[in-house]
Amino acid sequence: MNGRRITRAERAQIAMMLEVCAFPKPGNVDRCHDYPETRLEHFLASAILARPAFEKAEHSEGSLGELILDAVESTSVHSGGNTHFGAYILLIPLIVGRDIPGACRVVAETTVNDAVLFYKAFGKTRVRVLANDELDVNDPAAVAELERRQMTLYDVMLYSARNDMVAREWINGFTLTRRGADLLHSYGGGCGAVVGSFIDLLSTEPDTFIMKKHGQDTAWEIMKKAREVRDGVRDISKFDQECIDAGINPGSIADIIIASLYIALGEGWAWDC
Amino acid sequence: MNGRRITRAERAQIAMMLEVCAFPKPGNVDRCHDYPETRLEHFLASAILARPAFEKAEHSEGSLGELILDAVESTSVHSGGNTHFGAYILLIPLIVGRDIPGACRVVAETTVNDAVLFYKAFGKTRVRVLANDELDVNDPAAVAELERRQMTLYDVMLYSARNDMVAREWINGFTLTRRGADLLHSYGGGCGAVVGSFIDLLSTEPDTFIMKKHGQDTAWEIMKKAREVRDGVRDISKFDQECIDAGINPGSIADIIIASLYIALGEGWAWDC
Repeated sequence: MNGRRITRAERAQIAMMLEVCAFPKPGNVDRCHDYPETRLEHFLASAILARPAFEKAEHSEGSLGELILDAVESTSVHSGGNTHFGAYILLIPLIVGRDIPGACRVVAETTVNDAVLFYKAFGKTRVRVLANDELDVNDPAAVAELERRQMTLYDVMLYSARNDMVAREWINGFTLTRRGADLLHSYGGGCGAVVGSFIDLLSTEPDTFIMKKHGQDTAWEIMKKAREVRDGVRDISKFDQECIDAGINPGSIADIIIASLYIALGEGWAWDC
Repeated sequence: MNGRRITRAERAQIAMMLEVCAFPKPGNVDRCHDYPETRLEHFLASAILARPAFEKAEHSEGSLGELILDAVESTSVHSGGNTHFGAYILLIPLIVGRDIPGACRVVAETTVNDAVLFYKAFGKTRVRVLANDELDVNDPAAVAELERRQMTLYDVMLYSARNDMVAREWINGFTLTRRGADLLHSYGGGCGAVVGSFIDLLSTEPDTFIMKKHGQDTAWEIMKKAREVRDGVRDISKFDQECIDAGINPGSIADIIIASLYIALGEGWAWDC
């Protein structure tokens, strides 16, 4: 070990790497589980390839909309589809703003153009959106609607916050990101703390990615089962397998844990103890 | 997927990532196995953190000695010890020179100063060297001896080639690197091809890292067993466990497979099929 300084961009990349390696993480890709079309290597390739966008964010070379689009474009070079869209929504303002208070400032300053670029980025992913949404990202008229309403990217997140816990982080001051970081500190260091924090967050928050894909009842049922895992009355490996078999992956909690890892690493949390 | 160009630095990072994730790789850290002090995450952190040194190599900003030292210093920020020293010895000239013919040219042009910087880099790792070696990297007099003999870094590799298959690559035109890349192409794509190529190389070449650590007989015995795995008469998982239990890790073959992945990826080999 020596004293080389880890940049904020590298810290975000290491957060992405640590999250996907941690296991067992019920329902998600981890060291022991792939999904047929999205594998561990896809997540890790994205962690490597996000670097140019993160470096621009570190040097404030671009607006949040440009930087999120850049991150999506930089990492869309493999066949694994979207791996980290939600994570970029959190990491980019955290890198630009350095920490949570700084991120809160930069999200408040977003523009209509950021919203348009964000929709462009969204269109390049396969991220699930609600049907019958008047601001559906797959609808070309949505961008015109954004401009007509003069919605900034912050406004888009406010609009999405009801159904999306990642968007909600922009609105509520990165509350769950902060809570995840506190959980990481409280669970000690290394992979075990990542899993502990993931289960803990999942046991108190219904995952909105599950909600969009499988409905509200399933999201609440998973939350209840996560609580039983946390309380030691349900086996984590069996719960993991059950989620995988049903294609239930708590992807939004995973995105938040990545942001939490970014914060905790900056506060001296030890990943390699 | 889109058309973004992957840089040579990124290609080297992805090669490092793919090698360590591939499993089962008898005796080495892989997706399913850690060593107590060196884990998957350490290897992946090094793949992320090597980027600045690889970028300098891509832009020829530094001599080979400087760049290898830079790679070691850039990645020595975790407690996992040396993970990729041998890989850097191969990747740095391959990145600077673009391909194998280019790498052969740049290794031939190294200087005495490169040799001195290489020894400095070596001293920062925990890499095993032979005892009673008059150019022992742990001996402060060795650098003076290098200067007295006016040995370039190429000369150091020539000197080490007898006992070190990674050094031998500099001397023989990256023969095993090329062979590994051909094997990757012949085994198809993805993780299975990495494992197939690893076993194939191990079944015809005694690993010199094993030789230094456990002696020549063990290295030949492992080669014989790898041949039985390749020929389908020995179970790979049992062989893997046997190596791990005995602390026998074919680390030099792993380094060469990383270099082979760098070459094969540049030739269109598909990692994510």
